[in-house]
Amino acid sequence: MTTQALIVIDVQNAIDDPKWGRRGQREAEVRIAELLAAWRERRLPIVHIRHDSTDPASPYRPGTQGNEFKDEVAPQIGEPVVDKRTNSAFIGTDLMDVLDELQVRSLVVTGVLLENSVDATVRMAAGLGFEVIIPEDAVASVDRKDHRGKNWSAEDVHALALSLLEGEYARITTSAEIIGNLP
Amino acid sequence: MTTQALIVIDVQNAIDDPKWGRRGQREAEVRIAELLAAWRERRLPIVHIRHDSTDPASPYRPGTQGNEFKDEVAPQIGEPVVDKRTNSAFIGTDLMDVLDELQVRSLVVTGVLLENSVDATVRMAAGLGFEVIIPEDAVASVDRKDHRGKNWSAEDVHALALSLLEGEYARITTSAEIIGNLP
Repeated sequence: MTTQALIVIDVQNAIDDPKWGRRGQREAEVRIAELLAAWRERRLPIVHIRHDSTDPASPYRPGTQGNEFKDEVAPQIGEPVVDKRTNSAFIGTDLMDVLDELQVRSLVVTGVLLENSVDATVRMAAGLGFEVIIPEDAVASVDRKDHRGKNWSAEDVHALALSLLEGEYARITTSAEIIGNLP
Repeated sequence: MTTQALIVIDVQNAIDDPKWGRRGQREAEVRIAELLAAWRERRLPIVHIRHDSTDPASPYRPGTQGNEFKDEVAPQIGEPVVDKRTNSAFIGTDLMDVLDELQVRSLVVTGVLLENSVDATVRMAAGLGFEVIIPEDAVASVDRKDHRGKNWSAEDVHALALSLLEGEYARITTSAEIIGNLP
């Protein structure tokens, strides 16, 4: 069986900032914590992705409380942390080297926002030849107003964003199913 | 003023195959042809992206009628054509070299499908530091059923996909506005 790495994207205090609007999938952090526990118990590889925004107005900018990982998903000693500045965790980072070193070709991708950094990272991962699995209850979206003024709920953004990735880029499942299938 | 390249993604006969489902934005090819004419008149750089699917069941596989460019947007002699095998035009291709050679840092991105290869290419382009402009009437989407069975019209997929790219990855405008602002 191929070694699967658990990837946790951008789950930092900044995601609780009100500027992003109403969030859906409020249990995503709980599901990610359960996945982390399952991975740690089996000593499987975990990679934490931290967003270091270059925008001075962003709650994700380095050196602030917002930039720190949320307690419930914080890295443990020895777990690799990859810092990124763009949306994709593969651009301007050493993520590819970290995954090569771990001899990983399959990724379970979790985190926030599904429709932004998770999406950009998943699309690149698939293009680079990785198998990608997304537990739908461990990724979260926010409400969105489109460029014509129509409002979309976080639940609809979540459903459509997952559907656009399904098949072509990723397999969509649940965290319980993933944990249940671990060796 | 920065030189803008016009990028046309995957507008091959294969996109008319019924397997993709009902398509919206039926006038996208007309808008792309108008953009191509405006670019050619001013001798501005154009890059054509051709999808060479590795899936034997895909209408985009090389050596078939489906793989050929649609007549109305076909490359003219001397215009670069970049062949890709994944959704992103930057993965496994020389697109970056072609754009560097043209000294281009701004892209007007058109083509199909907005929610698939256009999206994957735009997200990478922005991450790689390009300015990206999308004329909303020169990109097209198809109807989609999500993983929970809900149907989404091509018009809704188009609106939400554009909205997810807007600001963070691209500026959304119209082909008329772009042509009107050309030098």
